[in-house]
Amino acid sequence: MTNIAISGACGKMGRVIADICASRSDVKVIAGVDLFGEKYSDFPVVKSFSELPAKPDVIIDFSNPSALEPMLEYCKGQSVPVVIATTGYSAEQTAAIREAASVIPVFFTFNLSLGINLLASLAKKAVSVLGDAFDIEIIEKHHNQKIDAPSGTAIMLANAINEQADDKYELVYDRHSVRAKRKPSEIGMHAVRGGTIVGEHEIIFAGRDEVISLKHEAHSKSVFAAGSVNAAVYLSGKPAGLYDMSDMLAET
Amino acid sequence: MTNIAISGACGKMGRVIADICASRSDVKVIAGVDLFGEKYSDFPVVKSFSELPAKPDVIIDFSNPSALEPMLEYCKGQSVPVVIATTGYSAEQTAAIREAASVIPVFFTFNLSLGINLLASLAKKAVSVLGDAFDIEIIEKHHNQKIDAPSGTAIMLANAINEQADDKYELVYDRHSVRAKRKPSEIGMHAVRGGTIVGEHEIIFAGRDEVISLKHEAHSKSVFAAGSVNAAVYLSGKPAGLYDMSDMLAET
Amino acid sequence: MTNIAISGACGKMGRVIADICASRSDVKVIAGVDLFGEKYSDFPVVKSFSELPAKPDVIIDFSNPSALEPMLEYCKGQSVPVVIATTGYSAEQTAAIREAASVIPVFFTFNLSLGINLLASLAKKAVSVLGDAFDIEIIEKHHNQKIDAPSGTAIMLANAINEQADDKYELVYDRHSVRAKRKPSEIGMHAVRGGTIVGEHEIIFAGRDEVISLKHEAHSKSVFAAGSVNAAVYLSGKPAGLYDMSDMLAET
Amino acid sequence: MTNIAISGACGKMGRVIADICASRSDVKVIAGVDLFGEKYSDFPVVKSFSELPAKPDVIIDFSNPSALEPMLEYCKGQSVPVVIATTGYSAEQTAAIREAASVIPVFFTFNLSLGINLLASLAKKAVSVLGDAFDIEIIEKHHNQKIDAPSGTAIMLANAINEQADDKYELVYDRHSVRAKRKPSEIGMHAVRGGTIVGEHEIIFAGRDEVISLKHEAHSKSVFAAGSVNAAVYLSGKPAGLYDMSDMLAET
Repeated sequence: MTNIAISGACGKMGRVIADICASRSDVKVIAGVDLFGEKYSDFPVVKSFSELPAKPDVIIDFSNPSALEPMLEYCKGQSVPVVIATTGYSAEQTAAIREAASVIPVFFTFNLSLGINLLASLAKKAVSVLGDAFDIEIIEKHHNQKIDAPSGTAIMLANAINEQADDKYELVYDRHSVRAKRKPSEIGMHAVRGGTIVGEHEIIFAGRDEVISLKHEAHSKSVFAAGSVNAAVYLSGKPAGLYDMSDMLAET
Repeated sequence: MTNIAISGACGKMGRVIADICASRSDVKVIAGVDLFGEKYSDFPVVKSFSELPAKPDVIIDFSNPSALEPMLEYCKGQSVPVVIATTGYSAEQTAAIREAASVIPVFFTFNLSLGINLLASLAKKAVSVLGDAFDIEIIEKHHNQKIDAPSGTAIMLANAINEQADDKYELVYDRHSVRAKRKPSEIGMHAVRGGTIVGEHEIIFAGRDEVISLKHEAHSKSVFAAGSVNAAVYLSGKPAGLYDMSDMLAET
Repeated sequence: MTNIAISGACGKMGRVIADICASRSDVKVIAGVDLFGEKYSDFPVVKSFSELPAKPDVIIDFSNPSALEPMLEYCKGQSVPVVIATTGYSAEQTAAIREAASVIPVFFTFNLSLGINLLASLAKKAVSVLGDAFDIEIIEKHHNQKIDAPSGTAIMLANAINEQADDKYELVYDRHSVRAKRKPSEIGMHAVRGGTIVGEHEIIFAGRDEVISLKHEAHSKSVFAAGSVNAAVYLSGKPAGLYDMSDMLAET
Repeated sequence: MTNIAISGACGKMGRVIADICASRSDVKVIAGVDLFGEKYSDFPVVKSFSELPAKPDVIIDFSNPSALEPMLEYCKGQSVPVVIATTGYSAEQTAAIREAASVIPVFFTFNLSLGINLLASLAKKAVSVLGDAFDIEIIEKHHNQKIDAPSGTAIMLANAINEQADDKYELVYDRHSVRAKRKPSEIGMHAVRGGTIVGEHEIIFAGRDEVISLKHEAHSKSVFAAGSVNAAVYLSGKPAGLYDMSDMLAET
């Protein structure tokens, strides 16, 4: 049984994490930390880490960049592992996270979905087998409120491919302004936006008369919450260090 | 039985048209016209229209813009309907085609695939029903030797949608350079290029928690040849005028 | 402004309907009816129709077959139109619904998603254009808790196609037990089951070297709730009669 | 430079292999063997192996089960490696192929497409990572003239998954005859048939709010011809033994 404290317990993702923990028999939420600490049905919510009623086995953080410093202080001081799923950190904050990982176990990743990280892993394998004979394109789809394009996850996938291929690929975003054949070194990036699409990523390998495509669809944000709980169970009991999904996948 | 003469008989598409006609019982190729007139198994090939051994019911033209003038002269002089599937005409040539249509039946269209023209028709119906509540995106995929992007067919589909929607949509080709939410008036255009993909067009309507997609895949160029034969049968016996696929679809 | 009462207000779908109404400016929920009437934030919930604080313009019913009789009595007596989205009625109950439609406007349909009903309409158009030259297959995907296969919606789509085609198609569910070529009169039905997939329906038209596919994905049950609110707005002010989504689509 | 002889040189696949070899700089067709030996432009075609003008480095066989015995005799006698892509062998013939592999290198596989074999490999990786939390379904699509269902390749993919999962999965072909929830141990098999589809295989992993799908599309039979040439280059210079695509993939 892994005892968990949720940082950002009263936010949208915090609530989803609480629901997922309630449905599993191997984890238990013992407390939440949230500045806007409303009443919660199953566990106490406190306003700061020092008020936590007991030391958790792991903290899952889906809060806000501004909450980072006191959390890292607490985790380092109490030797509590932490899964950091908040995004939008500054370079200084990212450095602080890395530094903390020399003292405690820190799980820090861009995308907590098991499926997306598997996709990256499969794409690398495909690149190594298919070599130069196949052209690579990435299509991602998200809701119409997303302001960045392409998605960070699409870039993560392209980076994984490039890592496998000695960085030979360049990302191409717009073809309509040029009249020229596609170069083999291109990865075409396509950002589809519409409706309430949660998130879809597809990697296409197009060769001579055959096409392979690897696709992931997230149908709700709970995918990321579930990933954070898996990461918490994985992290509990690990030595100090910086971990991400590829470490977790490598052990399965 | 419709008697057909093929202009451009010895080209790649000319040969596919001949094959398709051979497999049908309602059409017969009586002759071909081709400057590079090689020996053909089933019918004579001549170098100019004046040498045609008999007057055909319809001419199918998959040749070259330079062959237009003598062909139109022959068709107008002999009152022979013509299906023009050649592309790349100048504005003057297009005007000449339209002028010929006042004298003889002329079938002139951008894409001769029945499926693509049906897709355009279904997209218009979808736009009229779904109204403003759905975001529209178009993804097209072609082989890595294609030099233009997006495909002419993708633009034709976007134009069909705009025609239905009082031209309220603007085409958007690149989102990575801006940080902003998608506007409802956008149609995102995505040109995927890779391998030997013959041609795929997908129109996506993304709304609140539901997505509708209409997709067409062409698996060989014979789709366009088959369309030209259907058009020839349709055109035979029609009065003078300019026809395209939507006329043909409207009669079914 | 259309004033709505929700029958089954405290159920899962009732709550989604309330949320959707709250986000629209053209409708207002004035009351809910629910035997298990908990406190609701924005409107009163009563235990029976006779307790309704005011006469609504339309009732939306997402409750239970057992609630039908008193609801129809109320609607007929007070001349209140009703959108019935509950399923699982007996033949007698269905007859009672039809009989009520001779006195009041009743909207009664199998699938309240605008998209699915559009899909059926597009499929009929496609069948009429493509004729016998294309083979038709339907793939539907649902979560692993669904006990019936194929989905009622997949059957509704097949019926729509058959209606357009003089009932010439027969549904085929299993090909592995026979060694024979596909017959042109088949519609292959494929029921994919897995995970938490809300609902996906795809109609495939496969011809000579081209494939057209029409697909609908529902990403949450709120699609059906939204459809019921649209139906309520549509129904308000209509004469007595039995209406369904195809009537609503025909007017757009 | 690998010198190749094609057994079945004048058949449909033999001609495609010849074309592919002509477009590559690392292989050369030195002769063909075919009972129906027509004139060939680039190399001589003989009626039996004993008439071959020179000893090839590898033989590629896309002929007929009846041609097996004399071919194996020749290959064993002359120590010539052979890529066997013919299908439909009897159990005795399969045993003879395996026996020959103790003397010479033999490449013998069900599906020569690089992509399909990569797909099987990726599916195994996915199964090992996703474990029991995802439901697996396989959809395959082929033309309307195919008489067997599901495709042998779909079964090969299911077997690869089962091999990774201790044979815990059973194949399910028809769900419409039962009213029951899907069991986690099922792999649903769906055989779509229509038009001229060359071959498409998709493996779906559906979990809680996320779906991963791995898909391969073959757009022409030349995919299999290309695979045979790759196999021939791979096989040249190998020691005696039985090889298949997974061996070839393992070395990349």
